[in-house]
Amino acid sequence: MTTTPDLRVGVGGAGQMGADHIQRITRVISGATVSAIVEPDAGRAAAAAAAPGSRAFASLDDALDASALEAVVIATPGQFHELVLVPALAAGLPVLCEKPLTPDSAEALRVLELEQTLDRPHIQLGFMRRFDDEYRALRELVVSGDAGELLFLRGVHRNPSVPESYTQSMLITDSVVHEFDVMPWLAGSPVASVEVKYPRRNDRAPERLREPILVLIELRNGVLVDVEMNVSVRFGYQVATEAVFQTGTARIGQPAGLQRWSDARFSIAEHTSFTTRFARAYDAQVQAWVDAVRDGSLVAGPNAWDGYLVALACEAGVRALSEPGPIAFAPAERPAFYA
Amino acid sequence: MTTTPDLRVGVGGAGQMGADHIQRITRVISGATVSAIVEPDAGRAAAAAAAPGSRAFASLDDALDASALEAVVIATPGQFHELVLVPALAAGLPVLCEKPLTPDSAEALRVLELEQTLDRPHIQLGFMRRFDDEYRALRELVVSGDAGELLFLRGVHRNPSVPESYTQSMLITDSVVHEFDVMPWLAGSPVASVEVKYPRRNDRAPERLREPILVLIELRNGVLVDVEMNVSVRFGYQVATEAVFQTGTARIGQPAGLQRWSDARFSIAEHTSFTTRFARAYDAQVQAWVDAVRDGSLVAGPNAWDGYLVALACEAGVRALSEPGPIAFAPAERPAFYA
Amino acid sequence: MTTTPDLRVGVGGAGQMGADHIQRITRVISGATVSAIVEPDAGRAAAAAAAPGSRAFASLDDALDASALEAVVIATPGQFHELVLVPALAAGLPVLCEKPLTPDSAEALRVLELEQTLDRPHIQLGFMRRFDDEYRALRELVVSGDAGELLFLRGVHRNPSVPESYTQSMLITDSVVHEFDVMPWLAGSPVASVEVKYPRRNDRAPERLREPILVLIELRNGVLVDVEMNVSVRFGYQVATEAVFQTGTARIGQPAGLQRWSDARFSIAEHTSFTTRFARAYDAQVQAWVDAVRDGSLVAGPNAWDGYLVALACEAGVRALSEPGPIAFAPAERPAFYA
Amino acid sequence: MTTTPDLRVGVGGAGQMGADHIQRITRVISGATVSAIVEPDAGRAAAAAAAPGSRAFASLDDALDASALEAVVIATPGQFHELVLVPALAAGLPVLCEKPLTPDSAEALRVLELEQTLDRPHIQLGFMRRFDDEYRALRELVVSGDAGELLFLRGVHRNPSVPESYTQSMLITDSVVHEFDVMPWLAGSPVASVEVKYPRRNDRAPERLREPILVLIELRNGVLVDVEMNVSVRFGYQVATEAVFQTGTARIGQPAGLQRWSDARFSIAEHTSFTTRFARAYDAQVQAWVDAVRDGSLVAGPNAWDGYLVALACEAGVRALSEPGPIAFAPAERPAFYA
Repeated sequence: MTTTPDLRVGVGGAGQMGADHIQRITRVISGATVSAIVEPDAGRAAAAAAAPGSRAFASLDDALDASALEAVVIATPGQFHELVLVPALAAGLPVLCEKPLTPDSAEALRVLELEQTLDRPHIQLGFMRRFDDEYRALRELVVSGDAGELLFLRGVHRNPSVPESYTQSMLITDSVVHEFDVMPWLAGSPVASVEVKYPRRNDRAPERLREPILVLIELRNGVLVDVEMNVSVRFGYQVATEAVFQTGTARIGQPAGLQRWSDARFSIAEHTSFTTRFARAYDAQVQAWVDAVRDGSLVAGPNAWDGYLVALACEAGVRALSEPGPIAFAPAERPAFYA
Repeated sequence: MTTTPDLRVGVGGAGQMGADHIQRITRVISGATVSAIVEPDAGRAAAAAAAPGSRAFASLDDALDASALEAVVIATPGQFHELVLVPALAAGLPVLCEKPLTPDSAEALRVLELEQTLDRPHIQLGFMRRFDDEYRALRELVVSGDAGELLFLRGVHRNPSVPESYTQSMLITDSVVHEFDVMPWLAGSPVASVEVKYPRRNDRAPERLREPILVLIELRNGVLVDVEMNVSVRFGYQVATEAVFQTGTARIGQPAGLQRWSDARFSIAEHTSFTTRFARAYDAQVQAWVDAVRDGSLVAGPNAWDGYLVALACEAGVRALSEPGPIAFAPAERPAFYA
Repeated sequence: MTTTPDLRVGVGGAGQMGADHIQRITRVISGATVSAIVEPDAGRAAAAAAAPGSRAFASLDDALDASALEAVVIATPGQFHELVLVPALAAGLPVLCEKPLTPDSAEALRVLELEQTLDRPHIQLGFMRRFDDEYRALRELVVSGDAGELLFLRGVHRNPSVPESYTQSMLITDSVVHEFDVMPWLAGSPVASVEVKYPRRNDRAPERLREPILVLIELRNGVLVDVEMNVSVRFGYQVATEAVFQTGTARIGQPAGLQRWSDARFSIAEHTSFTTRFARAYDAQVQAWVDAVRDGSLVAGPNAWDGYLVALACEAGVRALSEPGPIAFAPAERPAFYA
Repeated sequence: MTTTPDLRVGVGGAGQMGADHIQRITRVISGATVSAIVEPDAGRAAAAAAAPGSRAFASLDDALDASALEAVVIATPGQFHELVLVPALAAGLPVLCEKPLTPDSAEALRVLELEQTLDRPHIQLGFMRRFDDEYRALRELVVSGDAGELLFLRGVHRNPSVPESYTQSMLITDSVVHEFDVMPWLAGSPVASVEVKYPRRNDRAPERLREPILVLIELRNGVLVDVEMNVSVRFGYQVATEAVFQTGTARIGQPAGLQRWSDARFSIAEHTSFTTRFARAYDAQVQAWVDAVRDGSLVAGPNAWDGYLVALACEAGVRALSEPGPIAFAPAERPAFYA
């Protein structure tokens, strides 16, 4: 019997997210090794290349010339995604691309067009919630029909704080973007319109931000989604959803684990970062993609088309930050290629 | 030492709610007895007059002529409230009036005007949530500032089913009406506008109803309220609120009590009716009012002015069922009488 | 129709527990008033007689001579119970007697003998757990057979601290005494033996106490009970039981109410005193007894026979504090009078 | 930069547990591959050898002759452990040995003696609870002193059912054995005595079993442990512990994940098997061992000495099934080799 050799993966971008992926593939994921690190910043590249067996390159072209990879994980900032996606697709490489596909939907359409010159979808997107055990359990409940039809999805997305670089529109493009992917996936129907409402402003939030916000998302099948987006809560990191069905509700994302009684209170630790809340989802996502690449199916999760839909929703969402009422939009027709 | 004799209370209306109040005052409340039952329907009146020591009357005037009561609880349908309130106020009786004060705000204004001919407010309204232990704990948390300022209130109000007589506008006037009272009370600020959004319709709901609905309520201090109103959930009765503060959140209305493990599930019984969920609140409300009447303060809860504000919000809410966007409104100026 | 006049209740003992009962009967319980306070300490008696309509007496005989009461609540320290029970029974008064019936089983037998000279049981005991909603729900689950037969009961009884006067044997006679009543009641079978095990000593407990202890109680039907008795936990007041059945388990006594997220924790307030944990049980107990007295059934809860059984169990428990292995015991035969 | 090649692991025993380990090392664990499967049963061996790159052998000697492994996982039935441990230690192989080390303490002592002829401990035992996130969190709480000293540990270990081959003494040797390892590890003190109490027998259990049982374990530092061992509960799989400290308690092993409201109940799915409850612990255990082998420390968890202590406790526990009172025992002196 023969062994399938490990998949040789290049990682584009050695910032925080890239470094996480390098660590994950090296330490957690079976069937893959990091063979190339593509990073123009020499310092970062050197630090990251501590991954056993990997080589550093300043560009994807260099790495391709050296035959240093069979597949690529893109973890650069979003505005550089297209720059890496184009040569990767040209080389026929399978890609796991961090969200978003691209920051705007016009770019996304260009990427989709290029991808369709290949025989089948090659891009999988890093919306890792689809790999989270609880989201999956909720999706199964929707599909089963066990609680009747899904009517309403109520989400919270709460961060303890955000970095200095975080702007008002990033409430949509960096945070709500996850809901634009996962809520339609849960409900089995795409976004039709986006609207933003403003609760009382948190005056402990950075001055440049007017938040929390409440985002109302209508899906084509009539399911309404409301998401509280809140990035200065201080008390923990929380991503939770309540699904309202015809004959019951279900809730995911509540804390668990060690339970304590002390000082006249019963308490359970809450997450303080997405890195713990979604640790297993990240692992499962990368493992699923490695397996898909090795067995030739290439994609085992959200694909480039999903990324384009999300880019459209983000554009509507950003407009909704300042325009009253629902901002509707309609996507291009889905090519059979993505059926 | 001398005993204060029991307060002699007349109950107007001997339907389900009136019968409940008769039972409560007779069996649970100390310091009061039911001395008169005012009910034009002779059958109902006879059944209700089984309360020890009470007499039945066809009208409040008859009861007043017989000096049969010192205070009155009004539990007739809302459209008859004004008819009982007018003679009660004319006679200077303290009143505990079931919600709503009156079905429309014009009637409410007339009642307010009449009440102001007395020396002080005489009407307390039956918004019993203000007496619920958990709502009170939440209100205390708001007042304490312990979690920072309140920003956002997210409510659910779910009924297993509704009777045949329940119409679309009763989603607002019979159900959301409670939120119009309790949410401003929690937040310490009145309603500024009301808007309605439609999630996917529950096709197991009665054909005449388009529900669930999501009601968005802006308060004057900027706090946003969203309430899921859902009257065909079948699985239980749920009234819950999550309050989002600057540095934490708090939730009330979750089930508790006996916890079971069986059939591979951990489970806790949910309420199936407001009668159990708010049993203690009803008792506390009536006891507080009895005590207030006996000590001369007359009102120990929501007063007629609160009832007028709720009538306004209901009118806006009913319009919002069919008009897009927020329906704003402004109340008359609050008389010093109600300060 | 005529009113039944309120039951005229005398309260024996105006210490903390007596004052609570006076307050409860006056403010909460319908159908009863405090008509007499029997308390040799003049200061206490005066303070307590602030109850409207009541008179103070130095002894029960004085109160009886003045025809000042129809029924009596005994809230004196346990060692004086027999002194009040004897004249009360001689006068044919219905009695609600705080636990324990008497401190030792020989006294208990004497009281039982005296009570049997009356036509039916007149003594109800203050084991208020039987009136707690959750204990009742658990008892109903046992009776229903819905989870199969009951096999094992695991209890915790935790106090934040105890007063200076609390001695080692009071772990049994003042605290575990409740379990000796309620566990047999839950399981439908009396105590057969008692054994004590010592976990590591809590060196923050008062020096005179060796605790926590684990009390193992075998019931005649084979059900085993283990109870952690812990009186220096500081963090709250907890009385909880897990019942292990053939096909499931059930748990009562967990905290609930307002739930908070703050400082990276989800938390719920725990009780800090029995006065809140069992507030409603105390009310329900007294109301049930008032109603029983008024309708002639006299007793609506644990009776004197139950008190005798508990006295026996306490004697075994105290021995088990210092003797290894189970301490078995057998009660006298139950008279038909208590059937 | 150079890559460390994967550790070549042989798996002894290709039954259910062995097959699980093969799957885990192949699919989940990074840095290791299954290079040899040692299994006398040819059918099992063939099925298992579907692991990519592995070869099947009828004995460990054959595998050693073929230089087919650098380390070995022993997953045979316990009575064959010594047979595989002896040649593995003779060959100087690092070993991950499923619990128990050996079925009796005399065998265990022989294994310890042989292991001490090597330069350092080579055997790690498969008590995977020590790798469970919640047990680790609880251990950290003990070590931190944050809740004061640990006083009492209360465990439940509940299985839905057991196979036909499961005998009365396996309650101890197959099930409670885990508590004999993990409770001393949590408390930082070894077992001093073991005692068994019998709750009411579950008459739905197989006729040959008298269970549930309550096992009382005294640790040398005075901490008391009681464990409910219950193998016919039907309703789920539960391993939970409550730790009682001086100033608080903590609980692990409660269910979490997707929460549902339906049919008037709030519910959460309970595990039905150890394979889901401890899935991540198994993975973490094997990964820790692979890493330890690769970095030369060889053992990163319970070692052979721990296995010997557990064997002693099991012997006491089996006696306690039929002898009243605590069965005490004392281990041999711990060699410096295991310090």
